[in-house]
Order: sequence, then structure tokens, then C-alpha cells
Amino acid sequence: MYPFLIFAEGLHNVRPELKILEYKDGVLLKSVGALLNLSDADGEFFPLNDGQKGMSYYSRELVTAVDITYHFGGNNPQLLSIAEKQNRVLLDDSGLSVALGIRDGRAQPFLKESINLSDGSDGNQGGVSVLRYGDEDLTLVFKYAAQGLSHGHYDKLSFSLFEKGKEVLQDYGLARFVNIEQKGGGNYLKENTTWAKQTIAHNTIVQNETSHFEGRYEVGSQHHSDLYFFDAADADVQVVSATEKNAYPGTEMHRTMALIKNANFEKPFLLDIIRINSHTENQYDLPFYFMGQVMKVNFEYDSPTTLSALGENNGYEHLYLEGAGKPSSDNAKFLWMDNRKFYTLTSVTTASDELIFTRIGANDPEFNLRRDAAIMIRRMDTKDTVFVSVVEPHGSYSPVSEFAVNSNSNIASLKVAYDDEDYTAVSIEDLQGRKSMFILSIKNASASKEHRLEIGGSEYQWSGPYSYIEK
Amino acid sequence: MYPFLIFAEGLHNVRPELKILEYKDGVLLKSVGALLNLSDADGEFFPLNDGQKGMSYYSRELVTAVDITYHFGGNNPQLLSIAEKQNRVLLDDSGLSVALGIRDGRAQPFLKESINLSDGSDGNQGGVSVLRYGDEDLTLVFKYAAQGLSHGHYDKLSFSLFEKGKEVLQDYGLARFVNIEQKGGGNYLKENTTWAKQTIAHNTIVQNETSHFEGRYEVGSQHHSDLYFFDAADADVQVVSATEKNAYPGTEMHRTMALIKNANFEKPFLLDIIRINSHTENQYDLPFYFMGQVMKVNFEYDSPTTLSALGENNGYEHLYLEGAGKPSSDNAKFLWMDNRKFYTLTSVTTASDELIFTRIGANDPEFNLRRDAAIMIRRMDTKDTVFVSVVEPHGSYSPVSEFAVNSNSNIASLKVAYDDEDYTAVSIEDLQGRKSMFILSIKNASASKEHRLEIGGSEYQWSGPYSYIEK
Repeated sequence: MYPFLIFAEGLHNVRPELKILEYKDGVLLKSVGALLNLSDADGEFFPLNDGQKGMSYYSRELVTAVDITYHFGGNNPQLLSIAEKQNRVLLDDSGLSVALGIRDGRAQPFLKESINLSDGSDGNQGGVSVLRYGDEDLTLVFKYAAQGLSHGHYDKLSFSLFEKGKEVLQDYGLARFVNIEQKGGGNYLKENTTWAKQTIAHNTIVQNETSHFEGRYEVGSQHHSDLYFFDAADADVQVVSATEKNAYPGTEMHRTMALIKNANFEKPFLLDIIRINSHTENQYDLPFYFMGQVMKVNFEYDSPTTLSALGENNGYEHLYLEGAGKPSSDNAKFLWMDNRKFYTLTSVTTASDELIFTRIGANDPEFNLRRDAAIMIRRMDTKDTVFVSVVEPHGSYSPVSEFAVNSNSNIASLKVAYDDEDYTAVSIEDLQGRKSMFILSIKNASASKEHRLEIGGSEYQWSGPYSYIEK
Repeated sequence: MYPFLIFAEGLHNVRPELKILEYKDGVLLKSVGALLNLSDADGEFFPLNDGQKGMSYYSRELVTAVDITYHFGGNNPQLLSIAEKQNRVLLDDSGLSVALGIRDGRAQPFLKESINLSDGSDGNQGGVSVLRYGDEDLTLVFKYAAQGLSHGHYDKLSFSLFEKGKEVLQDYGLARFVNIEQKGGGNYLKENTTWAKQTIAHNTIVQNETSHFEGRYEVGSQHHSDLYFFDAADADVQVVSATEKNAYPGTEMHRTMALIKNANFEKPFLLDIIRINSHTENQYDLPFYFMGQVMKVNFEYDSPTTLSALGENNGYEHLYLEGAGKPSSDNAKFLWMDNRKFYTLTSVTTASDELIFTRIGANDPEFNLRRDAAIMIRRMDTKDTVFVSVVEPHGSYSPVSEFAVNSNSNIASLKVAYDDEDYTAVSIEDLQGRKSMFILSIKNASASKEHRLEIGGSEYQWSGPYSYIEK
């Protein structure tokens, strides 16, 4: 942002007739708001594409951005609270404005919202959605954007999940230690290409162990994903849905992610529905890069005595296979703990699915990569399918009191209750037998469209692209 | 502490003639001070033996201990600052005393000191030393204690190192998730025996890939290490030295650790000297369980394409071999980064030493162990030898400013300048060519003993068990 804003400020001063700050409905100053909204509860930017983890709105570039935006963008008092945290202002008119605003007690809390940001010069090349529940208690970052120039990753329909400022399911970020000379002179490491940009490094679908667009920049740059709908009007059920038709020619992917606060659950959870339709039979891999330590799973798996790479290229050569098993029921459950909190992944599985534990670090002789883990669902020889998962934060552990509270998932059963070319419905039953149903309309995202569907003898009626009913 | 103190309070109330609180020079109340001194800058107890990381003086047991000690132990105002942090008091006379003391503004900061604690019922069975520099900027925990009953680990002369409340070189702690039912019912896991108690799980010498006392509890319980000397009088050069003669029959180990603040170094560093004398030729392994990520080394190493266990038993079966090489010079250097700070290990090496990267996690099918790393120096076919290393914290990195500051070691050369049966001398030369010399008297720890030694044409004279000279 920094060069754009400085240049704009200069133009504004010497060529006011250009009205640069009003250009495109004030896109420059608006973009600062967008940028601030792309940060976690600690002010750190989500590590999209080649973002380095830890970069935050405490940087000098963001001091400039916040001050200029405050001064020229209508004195938004919420920006003052960011400036207060930054504890610095520019030594110019804009910094003075900010300092005076803070002195006069006009600062208001910066309210981060659930937001849908469109990509591309005309805003029609996909985008990034951020769904936030509560005071950033749970934050979903969903990416369905364009390639992102040379810094783009092959990560269509990928996501990351945060609880306050902590990653629950991570985006790896980049393979670079910016300005640390001991690591490749502080430049991009070759693992940025061989690992970090590859699709398997992200929480999204990989077909046949190849990256989106075969990892070809020229091809990826011609395409983008498409928003199906974004609806954050109901704070307790926020939904974003997008499609990708070009990453794997002949295969359409449609991912819908909902942040849901059900009164019968301690914390909000994430519902993830991926519909895949293909002309051909494929292998689909869906990894979840969890942070922390495995607590328990509900399936048997084998552990190799020696660790070998999971594959030979497209990033698979950097993953060790730490374990592989088969589901023992219709739901695979995986419980882990991080940062003294518990999380459960519940996934609808078929008997032939493979459940794979991986760890980053194979073929990394210089220790350029973090040794982080994932659990992966692998579905082979499949044309059309639906992946349905719930990521459920719950409970806590204290090594001081030695109490583990609510350390088990509250989900008794997760099911695809209905699936055809028009609708996909998912039912969630909790441990007390209470059910809820999420129904997605596949072909019509109109908010006014009326739907009627019979599922298991019950009739459902609603309008709009989705319905969520607690029974 | 809790049951002892509660019982003592009861005795004090109903059988005052026993003078229980005065027993053994007030050992009960003194022990609370010792306990508080066994915590890091965040109040968390050092994970000695089967200690679980994260347990701290914020626990209910320590509220009891602090309140009782304050009330019956002379109203030490430093205890009030701990009670303030605890933010709770007992609902009895002792809690009232504490509350009144805080109300009346009598709290004083609890000053943690460098301290030497003796082990055993008569205080003559070795001990634990804590060397602290500054406001817990660097803290060494050195263990030369007795076995520690059934909770003891085979970790003679082991250490851990903290910068503020963060581990720089860790003690693994225990392999248990206390009261987390999903992990073995919350009980000790079998890896506590096969890994956490084993010598190789600690930052100390392992001979011939066997644990101290062959991992036999009955044997270990008959012995303890011995203090050679402890001297923390000079805040800038604090030294502890101890010997172990029984862990490996026929082998004597003598470890000396010094926390040194040299004016030419940004931060204090740790000097580690291990003298070994044996009747037989052995393999000696010395691991350093660093936290964080490898930045750079000054030697070549091979990286296996598949990871296998380093050994077959005594904990080695839980270590993956991630790399192995040979020193390329007289000093092996290993730079790593953690928590946005840099650290360098500089070790005096011989051409035939092996330098090994390990990672915990082999033969751990249930993911009970953390995937933490170590670098290890292996010296084979050796009777008598000296391991000399410096652990040097330096610099910092900010992902916000993207500046890496002071990211290189300041040590140009580390040498064993002299070594015979009476003295070991170590010289440290910094990048500007300034030298310092640490000389250890091996056979006489008397503070008044006068020594005279010629090293490389210079004559050194000093009194006491060690001398440190900056030139």
C-alpha cells in the first residue's frame, strides 16, 4: 500500500484536479480498510500467497496508510484506535490529524467485520472472504481469488482458520526468511516453488497429486474462481460459497464454508462442504494442516517404521507419510490439542477412503521448512463426490489446574442427508440427539428464490441459497 | 508441598510444642522459597524429572504454600508480590494476613536469585543449581541431584536454558498429558519410560547409547552426583561445577557450566565444559535440544531420503536421524532461531566427531511425543576427553520491520587452551580478536587455594577454583 498512498498524497497535493483519492469510488482509501480487515486478532495479516507470517499493522507502512486514510478519508474514528496501538504517527499533516484526534478522545474501537473482498482490477475475478464470529473468537479466511501475479499460490478454494490470533488450521505461508541472510540471502528459497506454492501445501482439494493449473503460472493467470454467494447477515450462520472450474480441466469444484453458532455447542464451528464433479475418475486429496498435537482418532492406522516421502513432485516430495488408515465408520474423527484448547475434525467418509497423517520436511536438507503436520482424506477412483467436514473448537486444558474441560466433540453423527444436482443437505446430530440441517441450493444463489425439498420424509421450505435449521 | 504444609499448619495449631515449623531450621517454610526459585520468568516450574510443563505458582497448591509461608514465616513482603499475581488467598488466618499485607501496600518484588539447592534428607546428595543473569534474561538450570524416587529421570549433569520464560534448550519433561483422558486415561504413557526418563532425552552425556545406571532404578537410587563448587558471587561470571562417578562405572564425568556476561558480547552466554575420564574406550553422545528452526551450520552433512530410528533402545528408538556430518574445522557452529531471537552453539570438535541432527517421533504410533529437534555431538572410541561448548544468545528478528539484527555469532574461535589432570583452560576469541580465558582447577575447589599456570607463554595466577580473564 505504501508506494500507492505516498504517490497519491503527492498527486493530491500538486495535482488536485486529478482527484486521485476519489478515483474509482475512493478505491485507494477503501483498500486500507480492506487491508486492516485482512488481519487477525493480533493485527497480523493473514498469510495469503507469499505473505510472511508475523507482518502486521504495526509496520511502518501501515502507520503511513492509517494516517493518510484518516486524514484524507473522512476522519474515521475507528482508525484512531489502530493508530493508538501503533503508538506512532507520521511527521506531517496526516500524522498531526491522527494525534489530535487521539488527544481529543475521539478514538473508537476498530470493528472488524465479516467481509467479502473482490479480486481483479474490475473486482470481478473472484475474491477473498473473511467470516468472523464474535470478537474474532473464530475467523475463517476463504480464498477464491485470481492467481495473484508472481506471488500467487496454486490454492483455489483454500482456507485457514483462526481462534483469536492463533492459527487452528494454517496456511503455510511462504518459504522464505525475509532479510535473514543465513537463509538463502533472505530471498525466496527454492522450497517456495517446490512446496509453499503447490496446492498440497494448502487446505484444499488436490486432484491426482498435481497442483491447480499443473502449477503453470501462465495458465493460472488466465483464470479465477467465482463467488457463488456470500451471506454474513446472520451472525450465527455466516456462509460463503465459490466455484472453481479451471484448475483441473474437466473437473468442477464447489466449496461452501459456514461458520455456525449452534446454541447446543459450546463454541462456533466450521462446516465445510466440497462438491466435485468430473468427467473422469480421479484421486482427490483434502489435507487439513492442524496446529498442535494429535490427541485421538476413531480409526485404525498403520505407522511406518521409517518415514518416506508421500510422493515425488508437486510438493508431495516434501511430505513424510506418518501414518495411513481406513475409516472405521461413516465418520472419521480426529481430535487434537493446541494452545491448551481442543479441536475435533469430523468428516463424512466412505469405506474406501484413506486417512493419512503427513508431516512437512522430506527432501528439505537445509531445514528450510517447518515440521508441521496435517491429516488428509484421500478418495480414489472417483468422478463425482462430496467432502463434508466439521471443524469444531471445544473445551480447554490447564496445566496449572490440571483440568481438561469439554475435551470431546459434541457431534454424534455427521451425514450427507441429501445430494443431487440441485441440492446438498448435511445433517449434524449432537451427543444429546439434537439435529440440525444445512441445505445448500447448488444452481441458484438468488436470495429471493423459493425452495422446497423433501428429505427423509420431512419437507423443507426456504428462500435463498441455503437453509440452516436447528430442530 | 501442599500436604506437608497443611499437615504442618494443623500440627502447629494443635501440637504447638512440636515446633514443627521450626523443625530442621525451618525447612518446611524455606522449601517454599526454594520452590518459587525453581520457576521461570513466567512463574512456571522448571520441568525437572516428571514435571509437566506449564505447572506454575498460579496453582491452588502454591496459593496455600505462599499464604502459609507468609503468615507463619515472618511476613516476607516479597511473598506478597507472588500473592498479588496469584490474585487469590486462602480463606483462613494466613490468607487474611496476606490480604492485609497487600492492602497496606507492603508487597515487594520477589527477587529470584541464583541459587544452589541441595538434595537428599540431609542435604548431602547432590542438588540443583539455578544461575540467573539479570532479570531472568538468561537462566541456567543444572541438575546434579539424586534419583528423585520413582519420578526421577536418568539425567545426571543435565541442564536446560531459558531466556525470560522461554526455553532455549529444553528438558523434555514428562510423556504424559495429566488428566487428559484421551491420552492413556491421563496417566503416564509408556513413552515416559521408553523416552522421557532415558538419558538421551536430556542435554547430557550418554555413553555407548545406554542410559545412566543402565536405566535401573535400584542402582540409580543408591547414588547421586556431587557438587564440586557453586559460585554466583560475581553476577557477570556465575559458575557451577559437579561430578558424576557412578552413572557409568569406570567413567568419571565432570561438568562445569558458567553464565558469563562479557562486555564485548551483546548478551550473556553459557560456557559448558565436560571432562570425561574413563578406563575404557567409549562412544559419547552429547545432545542439545534446541527450540526453533535451523538457520545455518558451518559443516557439511548428509540428509537421508528416508528417516529411520537412530538406535534400537534406551530412547534412541524414538529419535529420527535427520542428518549426519563431520566438522569442517576445529569449531562446529550451529545457528538457530526461535521466538524471533538468534542462538549459536559453538563447540570444540575433533575431525572424527560426528554431528547429528535428530528429531523425536520415531516408534511413536500414537503421537504421544512432540516432534522436537536436537543437534548432537558424537565422539567415538574415546577414553578421556573434554567437550567444550558455548551457547550464545544474540540478536533478534522482526517480521514487522523485516530487520534481522546481530544474527551472527560473535565467537571467532573457541579452544581448549590447556588440559591436564589439574587444569582445563578454555579460550574464547571474538570477531574483533579480543580474547578471554576461563581456567578451571580440577582437583581443588577451595576458594582460598592459590593457583599458578603457564598457558602459551603467559602466566596466570589466581585463587579459587576458577579464573575468568578478559584481555
